[in-house]
Amino acid sequence: MARVPGFIWLDGALAPAGAPHLPVSDRGFQLGDGIFETLRARRGVAIELDAHLARLHQSADALALRLPFGDEAIAEGIVGLLAAESLDADGRDGAPPGDAALRITVSRGTVAGRGLLPAGYAEATGRLVIEAWPYAPPAPRLLAEGARAITSTIRHARRSPLAGVKTTSRAEHVYARLEALRAGADEALFLTADGEVSESTIANVWAVVGARLLTPSAGAAILAGTTRAWLFAHAAELGFAAEERPLVVEALVGAGEAFLSSSVAGIVPLVALDGHPIGSGQPGQRSLALREARERWIDDVSLGRAG
Amino acid sequence: MARVPGFIWLDGALAPAGAPHLPVSDRGFQLGDGIFETLRARRGVAIELDAHLARLHQSADALALRLPFGDEAIAEGIVGLLAAESLDADGRDGAPPGDAALRITVSRGTVAGRGLLPAGYAEATGRLVIEAWPYAPPAPRLLAEGARAITSTIRHARRSPLAGVKTTSRAEHVYARLEALRAGADEALFLTADGEVSESTIANVWAVVGARLLTPSAGAAILAGTTRAWLFAHAAELGFAAEERPLVVEALVGAGEAFLSSSVAGIVPLVALDGHPIGSGQPGQRSLALREARERWIDDVSLGRAG
Repeated sequence: MARVPGFIWLDGALAPAGAPHLPVSDRGFQLGDGIFETLRARRGVAIELDAHLARLHQSADALALRLPFGDEAIAEGIVGLLAAESLDADGRDGAPPGDAALRITVSRGTVAGRGLLPAGYAEATGRLVIEAWPYAPPAPRLLAEGARAITSTIRHARRSPLAGVKTTSRAEHVYARLEALRAGADEALFLTADGEVSESTIANVWAVVGARLLTPSAGAAILAGTTRAWLFAHAAELGFAAEERPLVVEALVGAGEAFLSSSVAGIVPLVALDGHPIGSGQPGQRSLALREARERWIDDVSLGRAG
Repeated sequence: MARVPGFIWLDGALAPAGAPHLPVSDRGFQLGDGIFETLRARRGVAIELDAHLARLHQSADALALRLPFGDEAIAEGIVGLLAAESLDADGRDGAPPGDAALRITVSRGTVAGRGLLPAGYAEATGRLVIEAWPYAPPAPRLLAEGARAITSTIRHARRSPLAGVKTTSRAEHVYARLEALRAGADEALFLTADGEVSESTIANVWAVVGARLLTPSAGAAILAGTTRAWLFAHAAELGFAAEERPLVVEALVGAGEAFLSSSVAGIVPLVALDGHPIGSGQPGQRSLALREARERWIDDVSLGRAG
């Protein structure tokens, strides 16, 4: 599972993954001046690729970054990379392209000169990398016992224009995850400056109240994920009503169930916050049913039966 | 002036600057999971190196990053790099090591596995890069006419534990500088979520009220710079009183003068905010006198006459 990828797709071609490819002047390395998307591939099919590419374009626009390749080239790059890696869940060589976690990263590339915005930044062509890892489902314990979260000491300003932009400037997210680790928790939630739940370091947050699925709105400094969008689109047919709602910590802890949603890990039950059990403190039946529905849908898409 | 550096100091040795050195898996590139310091060298002397290294250690502690080299090795690396580059203000080859802008960058290096904090993050040894550029003073216009700033739409949460940590996750700073550029301004100021002046994208902010130098405290989500510390240490002998004070926008605009302080650009008059002139709208005499005193002190340190 932890197999080191053999290849990456770098600026239009396959390249050996571990080799040195970037000058230190790359703006991603210097300043976190880049954007990314993380998604799943199932049976060689990149799940919800269009939605991820749409968000990549939005992120690029926000940072005035140039995407050096069009959507079609990126899609072909993914196909080529999965074929080269022959990734399946066990990372076996020679298997047909299969299940992977994919990451598309775009940095502003190399800009001559020093500082935040030297002359010439506008001519930067950008650098695009696609990486693939064998897909690993969440650890069995996370599904059997549920994820335990803490609230990070980092608060998010509501009106940050970058809240919904998936930049590679993730030091706050790394820091919050270190806080979780030190507290013996699995994940950290960011609150807004005024104390509402925003999101976790990698996922959107949901409270389940009866048949209602409640999640913070874009106004709570969230990055609206594709799995979140899927839940809004499919809630009704699954017997739920999905709603954007301000979520204070007390409401989340007081909910019957809670869960996290993200592209690669999928839907994962959330059972505790800052040591307080949520609902029964066990993975909720509704959360697990939603996880199953989502995984089934991904499977169907990979077989051409949904989409 | 815009000469591309020929060498860097990378993990203990000189290396050609433009060559590919980093795998894309470097955490600096992936996640902005790194820290840095920027400082000046004058006549081959790294100015206030001890203070910058102390802050590098603080930044490393905050992110649980390991510094792969001790202070002495870093200091030797700077000497070796300046000698190799023979940097003077004109970037002439063969000149004795001289005036440079230096940057020390440390990333978490390569960590096997995917995600924010894969197992093995704690074993990461870190990657340390030193870069040098020929020193370029602020553009003559900035000193003759003063810098014009806007307030960024990005607000900074007061109690962010990373506010005072110089991480390489600078996408917000790049974004704010893009805002300034679009507004025809030179610089952007961050405010706190509740509207007080915090800092600029690269400098601390000061209001001059009579002989008082007023600057926001650490509680306003600032990164306390070495030039800021120098001003506190030297204000009295220069005939000023330096004080930490909450600074609302109106107070800054209503001050007699204002200026920015940073390690490489030094002290630069600030003459307008969001189109409103500060004081006379011209560089203030006190600000220019402070700039001159600071530049003289740097010169003295480089000649072994102060420090």
